[in-house]
Amino acid sequence: MVAYLDNAATTPLDPRVGAAMAPWISGMAGNPSSLHAPGREARAAVEAARAQVAALLGARREEIIFTASGTEADNLALIGTVQASGSGRHHLVVGVIEHPAVIETARFLERQGVDVSFVPVDGFGRIDPDAVRRALRPHTRLISVMAASNVVGTLQPIAEIGRIARDAGIPFHTDAVQAAGKLPLDLAGLPVDLLSVSAHKLHGPKGVGALYVRTGVTLEPIIHGGGQEHGLRSATENVAGIVGLGRAAELARSEMAEDNARLVHLRDRLIEGIRLACPQAYLIGDPFRRLPGHACLGFAGQEGEAIRLLLALDEAGIAVSTGSACSAARGAEPSYVLQAMGFDALRARGALRLTLGRFNTAGDVDLVLERLPALVGGLRPLATARA
Amino acid sequence: MVAYLDNAATTPLDPRVGAAMAPWISGMAGNPSSLHAPGREARAAVEAARAQVAALLGARREEIIFTASGTEADNLALIGTVQASGSGRHHLVVGVIEHPAVIETARFLERQGVDVSFVPVDGFGRIDPDAVRRALRPHTRLISVMAASNVVGTLQPIAEIGRIARDAGIPFHTDAVQAAGKLPLDLAGLPVDLLSVSAHKLHGPKGVGALYVRTGVTLEPIIHGGGQEHGLRSATENVAGIVGLGRAAELARSEMAEDNARLVHLRDRLIEGIRLACPQAYLIGDPFRRLPGHACLGFAGQEGEAIRLLLALDEAGIAVSTGSACSAARGAEPSYVLQAMGFDALRARGALRLTLGRFNTAGDVDLVLERLPALVGGLRPLATARA
Repeated sequence: MVAYLDNAATTPLDPRVGAAMAPWISGMAGNPSSLHAPGREARAAVEAARAQVAALLGARREEIIFTASGTEADNLALIGTVQASGSGRHHLVVGVIEHPAVIETARFLERQGVDVSFVPVDGFGRIDPDAVRRALRPHTRLISVMAASNVVGTLQPIAEIGRIARDAGIPFHTDAVQAAGKLPLDLAGLPVDLLSVSAHKLHGPKGVGALYVRTGVTLEPIIHGGGQEHGLRSATENVAGIVGLGRAAELARSEMAEDNARLVHLRDRLIEGIRLACPQAYLIGDPFRRLPGHACLGFAGQEGEAIRLLLALDEAGIAVSTGSACSAARGAEPSYVLQAMGFDALRARGALRLTLGRFNTAGDVDLVLERLPALVGGLRPLATARA
Repeated sequence: MVAYLDNAATTPLDPRVGAAMAPWISGMAGNPSSLHAPGREARAAVEAARAQVAALLGARREEIIFTASGTEADNLALIGTVQASGSGRHHLVVGVIEHPAVIETARFLERQGVDVSFVPVDGFGRIDPDAVRRALRPHTRLISVMAASNVVGTLQPIAEIGRIARDAGIPFHTDAVQAAGKLPLDLAGLPVDLLSVSAHKLHGPKGVGALYVRTGVTLEPIIHGGGQEHGLRSATENVAGIVGLGRAAELARSEMAEDNARLVHLRDRLIEGIRLACPQAYLIGDPFRRLPGHACLGFAGQEGEAIRLLLALDEAGIAVSTGSACSAARGAEPSYVLQAMGFDALRARGALRLTLGRFNTAGDVDLVLERLPALVGGLRPLATARA
């Protein structure tokens, strides 16, 4: 048994989601484009899931486009907006600590001749809405700022940024991969035009995501073919995965308040417990405006040892991460997120991310508090010996 | 119970594939990029599946890139090749009866300024390799011809086309979505550089596909982000889906000879039985060089009634299609595939496609032979009344 505290990387599938998916895996799942009974049944299942995702977001059913991932949703939002803007000069405003799905897509567009402004963050990882306003240019086609940071858990002021975008008549995209299902997002009132969701971050399956596209916003597809998803995303629909995302969205909607109260309590106990036991521990990210289950900590003087700490915790049956899973393979490099927050290169290698989800218990937190301090202590001589 | 004869649209999941996927749905599936034990286990499962897909195709493990669909694989092959070709003029050679995933992607590239030549087919839906050779230009970057037609089942001479491509030093892509797992494709000997696969066409799950990329062939990604799949396809891997594709590939490899012998027998009994019972029936596509389980038929004088026939069969518990599932929603339009084969607009609306898979029985064929002739007969007065 592993105490899994890496829910920002991926979450365990909720068994109720698995149950909803089961008939679409074990039974006959038709192609939703087929006209016969198995096809019509698959179509109905996809459309029911679309309504569930729309309900979570306060959106209209036809505003939800299913994709294969949050990454694909981000790509569709950015590339699709630029493509739909025709020829001429284009400019994007993007947060500097966005997920690679946004950063790398912006860089790709930059190589295609698009101008990109990366908006800085403060020491808490927070964007100043005024900095977004100042970055706008006459040819700005899109603002993209994430709802919550995957690495440090900080929430961004997306309502304020959205109002700036609306005042300027510029579409606003938010990568809500970490936020959807965890923070109330009511798009009926929130000035957001495009919003990315990933099923596997909210106890749904891997391989499915969604992009909310506000009515009236125009995109070009990035994947061409049979014309599924209103022509915005061709391919036979991943029926089981979509059904799973729908059910996960429904559960998140009905259990969000209860889950969050519990997660905030566990998270704060985790953070406070570590800080009490490890005097060198410091919290990274905004202490108040952060994701309910998200703890990100540095250990003063031992930042270069974060990966050794991760592996020692793994040996002890505790799964955590340093920074993000996407950058795990490049673990030895300093985090661009922490560097943008003003950390020097050494300290920027030193985050330990512990992220809680629906299935974590007080026992998981107890286990971390029991094991971690000794491991942090045990690393000290190594760090010292090296210095 | 439905007699499902629409395996070209999608296939029932093999229960053995479902069993392989189950632990990745019900249990903890880590993020394969994570360094802890659940992450490493997920990575191992993805890599094992990659080896299974490589084995089916006679490829090397590192030549397999997982995608979310055959459509995405086709898009990556075409767009990725053009993007990797830098600036300047580019030209593609594409079969005229390709799946929309290739046709619409080629048209998208055409709108971006790429030159595209569509190579015609004969009355059997077959491309003349010499026509491909004649279409080549000095700035041709890619030839894309499908291995087998989804609509009419005709096999294309991909070995000959591949040799032409190789002689000319031009990469050759084949959409093998209908062929993979059904025809022996040994890429060690076959001169193909890029090849698309879709899991749900070979009794695997929807929402996962693969692109074979021969070592040395350069592509740019179409989805940008965390750099998964050798940087060619970013997003957290769909672990359960990939495991399913791997197992489906393994089963297809070990059972292909046996499955095909049975399918050819059932298919020929189906075609002959319909032709005996319905004198107006005619086979569409190549009578010999066709997919093992694929029957495509027209009914002389009743071509405009194909959708009514489909719906009548559906009422009778038999699931078939007219043309392709992707075009089902546009069912009233004549098929571009049949038109390219020389059918006039009326006859091009009239195909009935019956496609068999691993789980079809002689009883399914019997049921069609029992019900179809009366329904074809029953349509005649309506067709006459309308004329």
